Amino acid sequence: MSDNPTAGFRFNHTMLRVKDPDASLDFYRRVFGMELVKTLDFPEFEFTLYFLARQDEGEPAPPQDEGERTRWMFSQRGILELTYNYGTEKDPDFHYHDGNSEPQGFGHICFSVPDLDAAVRWFDQNNVEFVKRPDEGGLKDIAFVKDLDGYWIEILEPARLTGLGR
Amino acid sequence: MSDNPTAGFRFNHTMLRVKDPDASLDFYRRVFGMELVKTLDFPEFEFTLYFLARQDEGEPAPPQDEGERTRWMFSQRGILELTYNYGTEKDPDFHYHDGNSEPQGFGHICFSVPDLDAAVRWFDQNNVEFVKRPDEGGLKDIAFVKDLDGYWIEILEPARLTGLGR
Repeated sequence: MSDNPTAGFRFNHTMLRVKDPDASLDFYRRVFGMELVKTLDFPEFEFTLYFLARQDEGEPAPPQDEGERTRWMFSQRGILELTYNYGTEKDPDFHYHDGNSEPQGFGHICFSVPDLDAAVRWFDQNNVEFVKRPDEGGLKDIAFVKDLDGYWIEILEPARLTGLGR
Repeated sequence: MSDNPTAGFRFNHTMLRVKDPDASLDFYRRVFGMELVKTLDFPEFEFTLYFLARQDEGEPAPPQDEGERTRWMFSQRGILELTYNYGTEKDPDFHYHDGNSEPQGFGHICFSVPDLDAAVRWFDQNNVEFVKRPDEGGLKDIAFVKDLDGYWIEILEPARLTGLGR
């Protein structure tokens, strides 16, 4: 045991509300290669939680046993939680707030990729909307795309950013 | 090389805007044990970016070389980016939007902890504001606290949640 009161603390997940869970799950699974690890439905509160992980090839798969899978999921870093409140997808005027227009707060999530140019082609093939392409704006070599609710997703290639801040 | 176009994609970080970076850095370092891995200042755009990681004991430390450190940081999962826009801390009326009051969108970040009861005592010792204590509300064994900008941080102990959704 450690005397450090924060020993074992782990930044596990980020939660975003989504309007249409079927569409958003398809987006994050197909376009970002995430895996739906856990679905928790709370009919008494009229919401469903979806937990997605992005494992690299060669990393162990999540456990099959449901209890062990839950424990595993909450012990990882880099989990994305999507919250669906019943009925939002049926209201054509309903939309969530992205945090970048006023009132500001949350800014974005970010995926690093091994090849930014290939990722841009992949997003174009999948008709993903860009906020900023790598060659636009003040910060080169960084892209921002939008998910289906308009949340910003930063895309960067670590090897192209080693000169940042120097 | 893989034929999978999403191979190597990694959920690297979540970005939150903060009003007072000195206070927020102290909060995340002291109360959550995070380490400030990288500071990127952009005076031409009047903002500074702070990247925090939470390494477990026994995990390798970030590289010392600044370029390697940047590459390492953007290659991890579970990085927290805090964005400071110059001058916000001097305006007593300024505050960011937490995403849980209207207009809703982003919900929270989450830290898993090895001992929820000990974590609650630790947060109380540090005068952290609770949204919900573990024994309150419909979902037992889960707590929510607020960071200094009012963003919600979920706190959970994985071993106490293995029965969820069954």
